[in-house]
Amino acid sequence: MLPRSPARLQKILTLLSNRQPDLTVFMDQVHKPHNLAAIVRTADAVGIGHVHAVFPEDVKFTGHHTSSGSKRWVTTHKHSNLKSGIAEMKAKGMQVLAAHFSDTAVDFRTIDYTQPTCLLVGSELVGVSDEAAEIADQHVIIPMVGMVQSLNVSVATALILYEAQRQRSDAEMYGECKIPQAEVDEICFKALHP
Amino acid sequence: MLPRSPARLQKILTLLSNRQPDLTVFMDQVHKPHNLAAIVRTADAVGIGHVHAVFPEDVKFTGHHTSSGSKRWVTTHKHSNLKSGIAEMKAKGMQVLAAHFSDTAVDFRTIDYTQPTCLLVGSELVGVSDEAAEIADQHVIIPMVGMVQSLNVSVATALILYEAQRQRSDAEMYGECKIPQAEVDEICFKALHP
Ligand SMILES: C[S@@+](CC[C@H](N)C(=O)[O-])C[C@H]1O[C@@H](n2cnc3c(N)ncnc32)[C@H](O)[C@@H]1O
Ligand SMILES: C[S@@+](CC[C@H](N)C(=O)[O-])C[C@H]1O[C@@H](n2cnc3c(N)ncnc32)[C@H](O)[C@@H]1O
Repeated sequence: MLPRSPARLQKILTLLSNRQPDLTVFMDQVHKPHNLAAIVRTADAVGIGHVHAVFPEDVKFTGHHTSSGSKRWVTTHKHSNLKSGIAEMKAKGMQVLAAHFSDTAVDFRTIDYTQPTCLLVGSELVGVSDEAAEIADQHVIIPMVGMVQSLNVSVATALILYEAQRQRSDAEMYGECKIPQAEVDEICFKALHP
Repeated sequence: MLPRSPARLQKILTLLSNRQPDLTVFMDQVHKPHNLAAIVRTADAVGIGHVHAVFPEDVKFTGHHTSSGSKRWVTTHKHSNLKSGIAEMKAKGMQVLAAHFSDTAVDFRTIDYTQPTCLLVGSELVGVSDEAAEIADQHVIIPMVGMVQSLNVSVATALILYEAQRQRSDAEMYGECKIPQAEVDEICFKALHP
């Protein structure tokens, strides 16, 4: 069976050769559907196939509300417990960076994102929880020179992920398939059975 | 009359010294309130005090729906006509860059944003209109390596504006007040009468 068009085949090959299994996002109670959708969409665009989340108790996560189709290509792993979820990321050897306003936060552009990295972002209203801020290896901040106190969470996530994309692109970390064969098969299957 | 707190006074001084009157955004029929809000919020964060827009005929623009308060500090100028609106930007000596998928588009990071710049972005559904694409001096694109066709418009806008922020910061274009006295007075007045 062949993909329906050469353009689609080209897209799939691009995707397969560019996925970055050692880069991910962990959402700490982000809950607005348009933010979740925008984050997943950006993840796909920089080569992230898996993101992680804990949701507020009263939020029923039913997938994303956008038609961009990104949720077909990016899996959101729901964790019931923040601590154990982040411990999983650390066990995979990832540095956990919280996008978080704190006294110890450093400029997001000073970080080396070619290292295995999990970016932790906080909820729309209260930001990164104390628990998450404590577990994180480091806090990063995007400079702001205006009156508002923070950026939209999907905007902040994208700015940091695209800094990672820039560094990984410079380091030639794109263009060579690094995902397990089972996942390659799964992606191809999805692409061939739309 | 003094601002209520030294922290607030500090914020206002920061804002005044960092506004970039020769950097702006032009929204071509962007209409989802959360996108408008996120764009205005990002504009404030990189030092943009004025943005421009044409709205679809059936959209009644009533300001922004976020509580971040950015609309108090960033003015959205509504234009009834796209062509004359963009002509205004060009008359101010700005390069007009359309964030637009086209054969002639260049990577957004190859542009010199220290030049007076107006960034044109397109609507959620159809993107930059043909008319706008034609008037623009150049098209820019943010690289994507996944399956989705485009980024969220507020995400795309932020990525390009923060590339401008990075370049302008390196060129030491922040830190010296460049806005007219009348606007300084207006901002101080707003800050003192919350
Ligand atoms: C709307 S903000 C949360 C605001 C919350 N009031 C606070 O003080 O943290 C949502 C999330 O976006 C991310 N974020 C927003 N602006 C940021 C910035 N300038 N630097 C780093 N992260 C930012 C953080 O992860 C934050 O938790
Ligand atoms: C959701 S997109 C529009 C998608 C539309 N189907 C198209 O093909 O143009 C909304 C706007 O975001 C901006 N945008 C989104 N992704 C972009 C990218 N990768 N490069 C440049 N601009 C982008 C463009 O200004 C675009 O008009």
